[in-house]
Parts: sequence; structure tokens; C-alpha cells
Amino acid sequence: MSDANRNRPAPASACPPPSPKHSAIVLGHGGGGRLTADLVREVFMPALSNPILDRLNDSAEVTIGARGLLFTTDAFVVSPLRFPGGDIGSLAVNGTINDLAVAGGEPLGLSAAFILEEGFPIAELRLIVQSMRKAADQAGVGVIAADTKVVERGKADGLFITTSGIGLAAAESQLGPGEIRAGDAVLVSGPIGDHGVAVMSAREGLEFETTVVSDSAPLHDLVAAMLRGGGAIRCMRDPTRGGVATVVNELAKSAGAEILIEETAAPVRDGVRAACEILGLDPLYVACEGRLVAIVADADADRVLAAMRRHPLGADARRIGGVVRMGTPRVLLRTAFGAVRALELLAGAQLPRIC
Amino acid sequence: MSDANRNRPAPASACPPPSPKHSAIVLGHGGGGRLTADLVREVFMPALSNPILDRLNDSAEVTIGARGLLFTTDAFVVSPLRFPGGDIGSLAVNGTINDLAVAGGEPLGLSAAFILEEGFPIAELRLIVQSMRKAADQAGVGVIAADTKVVERGKADGLFITTSGIGLAAAESQLGPGEIRAGDAVLVSGPIGDHGVAVMSAREGLEFETTVVSDSAPLHDLVAAMLRGGGAIRCMRDPTRGGVATVVNELAKSAGAEILIEETAAPVRDGVRAACEILGLDPLYVACEGRLVAIVADADADRVLAAMRRHPLGADARRIGGVVRMGTPRVLLRTAFGAVRALELLAGAQLPRIC
Repeated sequence: MSDANRNRPAPASACPPPSPKHSAIVLGHGGGGRLTADLVREVFMPALSNPILDRLNDSAEVTIGARGLLFTTDAFVVSPLRFPGGDIGSLAVNGTINDLAVAGGEPLGLSAAFILEEGFPIAELRLIVQSMRKAADQAGVGVIAADTKVVERGKADGLFITTSGIGLAAAESQLGPGEIRAGDAVLVSGPIGDHGVAVMSAREGLEFETTVVSDSAPLHDLVAAMLRGGGAIRCMRDPTRGGVATVVNELAKSAGAEILIEETAAPVRDGVRAACEILGLDPLYVACEGRLVAIVADADADRVLAAMRRHPLGADARRIGGVVRMGTPRVLLRTAFGAVRALELLAGAQLPRIC
Repeated sequence: MSDANRNRPAPASACPPPSPKHSAIVLGHGGGGRLTADLVREVFMPALSNPILDRLNDSAEVTIGARGLLFTTDAFVVSPLRFPGGDIGSLAVNGTINDLAVAGGEPLGLSAAFILEEGFPIAELRLIVQSMRKAADQAGVGVIAADTKVVERGKADGLFITTSGIGLAAAESQLGPGEIRAGDAVLVSGPIGDHGVAVMSAREGLEFETTVVSDSAPLHDLVAAMLRGGGAIRCMRDPTRGGVATVVNELAKSAGAEILIEETAAPVRDGVRAACEILGLDPLYVACEGRLVAIVADADADRVLAAMRRHPLGADARRIGGVVRMGTPRVLLRTAFGAVRALELLAGAQLPRIC
């Protein structure tokens, strides 16, 4: 949950100004963009505020004895439940693993709470739970706590899964937006937007020339390789809802940094680019579920990139921008045509129910 | 999640035999009784099985350094969202606190994942989140991680909240059904069934002579007082979905114990008894959200009861039965008329969406 970069005017094309005040929830409140940030700032934070939650990190950290313990939660409401490259079960596992991973954590265990709609086929539930197990095994972690609730037909949409995760914080690394410095490099671990396009294609029954497959994957092993490889890694985030543009905005806001992203440097698969053109989407705002954005010291960028590229999940890692200066938080995009414009939070939901 | 006492024939009055095989989810799969146990045994455990989950405790325990760490999750889908004595917000906090408490844990932090239906009034969300904060403050713990998702109108029922919790296991106490011995006493911390009747009354717009108020409350402080008071406490459970009858069945099954409950010993408020008669419910199966069942050594029962009664949440604690012998797991009820009959798991949902 975060709130970023609200003070800059939105370019008319991408970001119409939000309506002055909502009295009821709209889909955009779940989109990860400006409306989500508004809801967090206006409803959740005033009531729930405490020093740990206020950090708005992907994982909360508490200290037990000498070790930091990470704790994170995510509800998954993706529609449809299955899509090329995954399903709600593997997504729920990987999504929570990744919130621990980008905090530098070693996953200890997951919980899963199922909300089922009356009439949901048990055979389908079985497949989804098996998919969770497979993803959990791949991440080397167990689902150690669970709960099941059922609501009447028409009161849910088949199946929602909320996963929470606990993990051990890395012993030595100090990760967080507070570590970001002027001159730092912005890296992304691979092609962006695959997950969002895969889900949209499945939802709309669209067929493109090539099938786009979700990038859903657990990132803790890639992160461990990056940390082992050395170099000053300042901060990491997984660009899910709202994509790379949103997490870079969140980091800029948290750090008080001006960040410049090079549009041509961001790796985008041909199939994703083609689908985005047809759907009218900007890949920078489309969700990934197996990628991370890392901010690293400029002098160490090549070393960290090399460590990422030696790992299968980071083979196509790229440098996509840098921290121009500290001060006023904002994100700029140098477009393919060389123009520089603001890269804002989206006002609403670009893609609802993508995770 | 548990499965208990399946080998005994069900008395025709209370427990019709379950249909041979469900191919789709029915409301009873969420009721906490036999169908829930079936779903856990047939779908969830085969896929997710691991040594920690297999214990089917209210909280999972992992070890970090020298300390045990407790981890638990629950989805809340209660309908209506508000009821006498509480709302989904306070219920979600107290329910998760209590899963940690009955494991002897000291709560460290909670997470909350919100699934909102498009159109849900933000003013109502604000009240519920404030109620969560109040309950969390009362329990001395913070909501330190959160997430929000939104689904389209008609794809959820206003608001669902999944809370997870982490806590430190008690340093010395050894709690669990494996500690149960023949001769142990079964205690309950107060009147039963208040929560379930309060929610049913609100849902159905029923008016009884006295308003029944939910017992929803955080139990960790009562548990701490019990542990401080000394005496061999074997095991505790909070009797939520399925009530006292269900948790006693789960304990009997886990421990391999025959347990006898005295119907006349179970404290039931007049208002709850009257409402149960009108609604055709047995208070032993009606959910509490601020009570616990404790199994303690017979010789220490009075001492533990005295410790409970010194605490406001245990003022009406009673001994309601005992462990007859170890061996075949079963639960017997001595009725008000002196007859002894089996006290079974319910086949389906007595009260859907009670938590």
C-alpha cells in the first residue's frame, strides 16, 4: 500500500484527475494506483497507523531475539482463476514469497485462507490446491496454516485466496528506500507485463499471434543470488498491480528521489507489446508476478546485473534508468522519441482483478 | 481444520449421514463440522500436507532461534457485517488473537487483507477499520501488514477480511492435545453461544425478550492469567464455528480420548437458551468468539478455575466434563434427563457465515 507523487499534474492522456471524493468503493480502489493510495491514506492509515505499518513496505518487519522476522499478506481475486502460465493457487504462493523475497527474506512458511462460493466445483479446487503445493515446493516452503469459509452462491466469485507469509530477514543486508542515493541505477530482472497480458488474454478470450505466458515465479532464490553476489543493493520491489511505473513511483516517494526511466531500455516481449497496442495499455503499468525492480549503487550495477543474469529468472535483466537526484519525489520517462515526461501513478485501475 | 470422530454412527436426530460424495461446494463445507472435516481430509491435506499443517492446530508453530513462533490465519465472511456486540472488524482481530492465545502465545502482530465489493460505502469501511483498531489496541497489538483488493458488484458480499497473526509461543508451557490424560477436567471460560445467537438475531431481524450480545473478545490476557496461576493446563481451544461440541470432538480425536460432557453444567444465558429453542439450535454447537475450552489435570482444576474467575472474561468459568479414558476417541453427553448419548460433529452447517 503506498501513495506516491500526488503533487504533480497528471498528463491528460494517461491520468485524468480523480473525482473529488468517492463515497463508495470503485474498481480503481483495487488497482494499485492513485485511488488505492487515496484509500490507504484516507481510510486505512488514519485508523490503523503504527510505526511498522506506516512504512508501507511489502513485508512488515518485527524483531525476535537477534533476528528480523518478515510478515506479509495478500488477497488474490484474479479472474479467470486459470491463465497461461499459472492459476490463482500458484499466483497466491509466488506473490507472497515475492513480498518476502524483495525484503531480502528467507521464507519460513505460508498461510492460506480460502473463501469459496457455494457451487464451486471440488475437482477445480483440488487442481488449484495441488498447484499451490507445487509452487510451495518449488519455493521450498510449506503452507503451514489454513482456513476455509463458504459463502452463498452469488456472494463471491468462485474462489478467493488470501496468503500470508513469514520469513527471516537477511542477517546483514540493509534494504529499504531510505538507502537510495543520487546516481543509483534502476534494474529490472526481466521482460515486463507478461502476467497482466496473460490474464487479460485469458479473460477476454483474446488470441494474439503468440501466446503470452504469465511470468509468475518465486523470486527468493534470485534475490539470494543477488545478495550473495555482493554490491550495494539499496532496495527491491516486485512490480505487481500497477507494474514498474507504480513501484518506481512508490520508491521515489518513499526515498524522496527523482528517478528517470528510459522507455527503450525496459525489456518488453514482442507478444506483450503487440497485445498492449491492441488493448491500449502501456507495458510499464502492466503487472508482473515474477520480476523485480532493484535500485543499486551505480558502481555496482554491472556486478549485480551479472549476478542476476546467471540466474534463470534474471537472464534478461536490464538497467532501465537511474536516480537523478534526491529532493522532490518524481518519476520521469524518457520516451522512445527522446522526450521527457512525468511517469505518474494511474488514477484508477488499468487492469482490474489481475492478481 | 480438523476431522473428528467419524467412526461412530450419527444419531438420526442431529446428524443425518453425509451424502456420499459432493462434487461441488455446499454451505456446510464452511460450517466447521463433518463436511468441513471431509473437505480438509480429502482436498486440502492430500495436496498441502506437511508436518506442521498436519497437526491441525489453531496456530502453526515454527522455531526461530530458541523461541517458538506461532502463525495463524482466518477468513471472516460474517453476515451481517455488524451485530450486537461487534462487527466484522473487531471479530477479525479478536478471532486471530484468540487462535494465538489458546496456543499460549503472546501476540506480536496482525495482518489484514480486505476484499471489497464495488459500491461498498466508504463511510462503513471507515467504521469497520476503526473498530479493528480499537480491538487491536485492546489486545495490545498492531495491524502491521495489509492489502486491499476490489471485485465487481455482485462478485463479493460487501466486505471480507482475512486476518493472520504471529505470536511468541509461551517459553515454558507445553500445550497440545497430546498432553491430555484420563481423568482430566474440561473447563469452559463462560456462557456459550452468545456470538452465534447475536449474529443470527441481527441477520434475521429477530427480537427476543433480551438482546443477546456477542461475546467477541480477545482471550490472550485471560490465557496469560491462567498460565501464571499454575496447574497443569493440557490444551486449550476457542469454540468458534461449531461451538463447544465441535472443539471437544476435535480434541477427543487428536488425543485419542473419550470425553464426557455434562449438559446441565454448560453455562447458557437465558436469552441464548430462549433463542436457541425458537431457532431449533443446540447451544453446544453455537459459536462463541470470546470463550475458551481448557483441558486441565483434575487435581489442578479448581486452581485453574479460580484463576479464570479472577479475570473479567472468565468470571463465569465452569467445569463441564472430563476425560473418561484414553483409547477410542469419542464424545458423550450426559443430558439434563440423565441419559448418555454421543455428541457428534454436525454433518453440515448449523449456522452459515457466523464468523
